Amino acid sequence: MAKTIARAPIRVRYHECDQQGIVFNAHYLAYFDMGSLEFFREVFGSYENLRARGVDTVVAASELTYRAPSRYDDELVVEVGIEHLGRTSLILAFTIVRGDELVTTGTNRYVFVDTGNLAKTAPPDDVREKLAALL
Amino acid sequence: MAKTIARAPIRVRYHECDQQGIVFNAHYLAYFDMGSLEFFREVFGSYENLRARGVDTVVAASELTYRAPSRYDDELVVEVGIEHLGRTSLILAFTIVRGDELVTTGTNRYVFVDTGNLAKTAPPDDVREKLAALL
Amino acid sequence: MAKTIARAPIRVRYHECDQQGIVFNAHYLAYFDMGSLEFFREVFGSYENLRARGVDTVVAASELTYRAPSRYDDELVVEVGIEHLGRTSLILAFTIVRGDELVTTGTNRYVFVDTGNLAKTAPPDDVREKLAALL
Amino acid sequence: MAKTIARAPIRVRYHECDQQGIVFNAHYLAYFDMGSLEFFREVFGSYENLRARGVDTVVAASELTYRAPSRYDDELVVEVGIEHLGRTSLILAFTIVRGDELVTTGTNRYVFVDTGNLAKTAPPDDVREKLAALL
Repeated sequence: MAKTIARAPIRVRYHECDQQGIVFNAHYLAYFDMGSLEFFREVFGSYENLRARGVDTVVAASELTYRAPSRYDDELVVEVGIEHLGRTSLILAFTIVRGDELVTTGTNRYVFVDTGNLAKTAPPDDVREKLAALL
Repeated sequence: MAKTIARAPIRVRYHECDQQGIVFNAHYLAYFDMGSLEFFREVFGSYENLRARGVDTVVAASELTYRAPSRYDDELVVEVGIEHLGRTSLILAFTIVRGDELVTTGTNRYVFVDTGNLAKTAPPDDVREKLAALL
Repeated sequence: MAKTIARAPIRVRYHECDQQGIVFNAHYLAYFDMGSLEFFREVFGSYENLRARGVDTVVAASELTYRAPSRYDDELVVEVGIEHLGRTSLILAFTIVRGDELVTTGTNRYVFVDTGNLAKTAPPDDVREKLAALL
Repeated sequence: MAKTIARAPIRVRYHECDQQGIVFNAHYLAYFDMGSLEFFREVFGSYENLRARGVDTVVAASELTYRAPSRYDDELVVEVGIEHLGRTSLILAFTIVRGDELVTTGTNRYVFVDTGNLAKTAPPDDVREKLAALL
């Protein structure tokens, strides 16, 4: 399991639960996104700092495994680590827990793109080194 | 690619787009869900008909590959087919298209559970046969 | 009741329903917004055309009266008319119907702002005239 | 202004912001709902305790005034008080603040209904007294 670099606390909202009283699965992908923003804040100070280096990220693929349902008012934490750092891509691993219990796990694969022309690109060395140092 | 059994038309709503003007990726998982409901309606008449046979489904895992962004007012179609029918599970394949263009593809793996005790179960023969006939 | 200028069809999505099986009330405000975009498209060709005239709109207040619940798969229509055209503001009236039945009614009050400095402003004469012609 | 009975803290999520970078107005109605749940928890221990007394609530109308925009990561608080207690209805007042600054204010009017037949009803005396004590 990837080392945890950042954590995003989430309290489940009533209207995120479906007619069975459990969190609608699409929200977990939103929770992953909230985790990713904490990750980029932790590593670069803010997502804007990353963009200021001329690179942006685009989500290319996601995987989710739903391990236990969660319900209204549950206090969840999204733990985020690096699963893989490629030349032009980054895979973040997300582990959503409620206390000691796994709720949902999964990954997002991000592709680095040039903020100017939006073409796939390798990030500058300093960006890459900050990420590599966390592996 | 799985044979298309059901289609769900979707018009992208303005507030589904993020600050970059493109659909926030978590919504694609909601679109998959909308496709799955059309699938169960097509095969069983309604999702309630499936439940009336004593089985419900729980989503166990999802995979998504984002191939092209979509934007406000885009007319998308979620095409749904069967990727795999197991003894106690079903994998649906989703292909979201805008005209001829692929937008997002992926799968949901469903586990059949008993509506009474919510334990994993094989569906009754008639349910299984309706699904198997579509393979 | 304000004359209907624009209509936005909406099919209720399963995940918009709460644990009581009816549409969560916050979604009606999103439906109003979808109606307003159809209104601006009808009157100005597109919302961008309005902005190209140097004015944008900001929602300042909303009122909603919930008259009947709506449920998954309901086919609703948001009918939009002008309730009031002020010098620097516009009140749109929304009537959400399911066939002949009223579901939700209400208004949004918009303030016109300068696209440059975002200060409250009177819209240019041609913009005002297009709106006034509909009263 | 109604005396504050309950408070719900809310941290604005990135995907709640629209293409202008500010919270999409429909979310404020969801925030009101989150405040109302804290209110009922504060007064009755839980919403289920209220229902156990044979009464449920239905939202009949809402009013919102948007006073200042809010953005990603803003820490908001929904303050909730009683605006009016009628024989079969209750109006809650919501004040969403960011520190000392007003963001959105408004009300929800609730009608008490019998949990059995869903008909409008006056709540039992003990329910009414708990609410009246807060006026």
